[in-house]
Amino acid sequence: MVQYSPRLGDAFAAVADPTRRGILERLGRKDASITDLAAAFGMTLTGIKKHVRILEGAGLATTEKVGRVRHCRLGPGQLTDATAWIARYQHMLEARLDRLGEFLERTKGRQS
Amino acid sequence: MVQYSPRLGDAFAAVADPTRRGILERLGRKDASITDLAAAFGMTLTGIKKHVRILEGAGLATTEKVGRVRHCRLGPGQLTDATAWIARYQHMLEARLDRLGEFLERTKGRQS
Repeated sequence: MVQYSPRLGDAFAAVADPTRRGILERLGRKDASITDLAAAFGMTLTGIKKHVRILEGAGLATTEKVGRVRHCRLGPGQLTDATAWIARYQHMLEARLDRLGEFLERTKGRQS
Repeated sequence: MVQYSPRLGDAFAAVADPTRRGILERLGRKDASITDLAAAFGMTLTGIKKHVRILEGAGLATTEKVGRVRHCRLGPGQLTDATAWIARYQHMLEARLDRLGEFLERTKGRQS
């Protein structure tokens, strides 16, 4: 049994939303305030804060309040567990396709 | 702007749940009926059906009713878009770390 961080589910849930993926892509280019993000995505401050809080919970963003402005940047979460899980899933899928291919080959052999 | 399948969000949402990841891992080893899955995960038939429906919606599982039994197997969805998105995110993160490293090197150079 492979052990994954309990944050694996949080990370997948965080990037399931297109706005949150957009926020990560934007923060990847440049740090931004909550106000910047709200303007960029045409959302209310409350709406953006909710998304940013979910990204923070998954370790994908961090925020810091300086004066009246809350600055957001990319967090330390690198989705490595998420990549590892997906890679394992794809490997499993390929193994199944290989077995199916072998079965079809054997069946063909019998018919000819 | 990279174009991803509209199913990208569905795929991430589908694998955000530990039971659904468990179902995919189990189907990776062997096809199973809804009843098998309910027994394996200690859930009601209704609970398992709900999870399987979400996996079906994301193309990660398919089901077929034969007589009174609904058989489940892995679907064609291979999470390739999900992997591609994560890879791009990690690349961006590394680029930021590189820039931070260069900045620190320059700062150190000035101080010595």
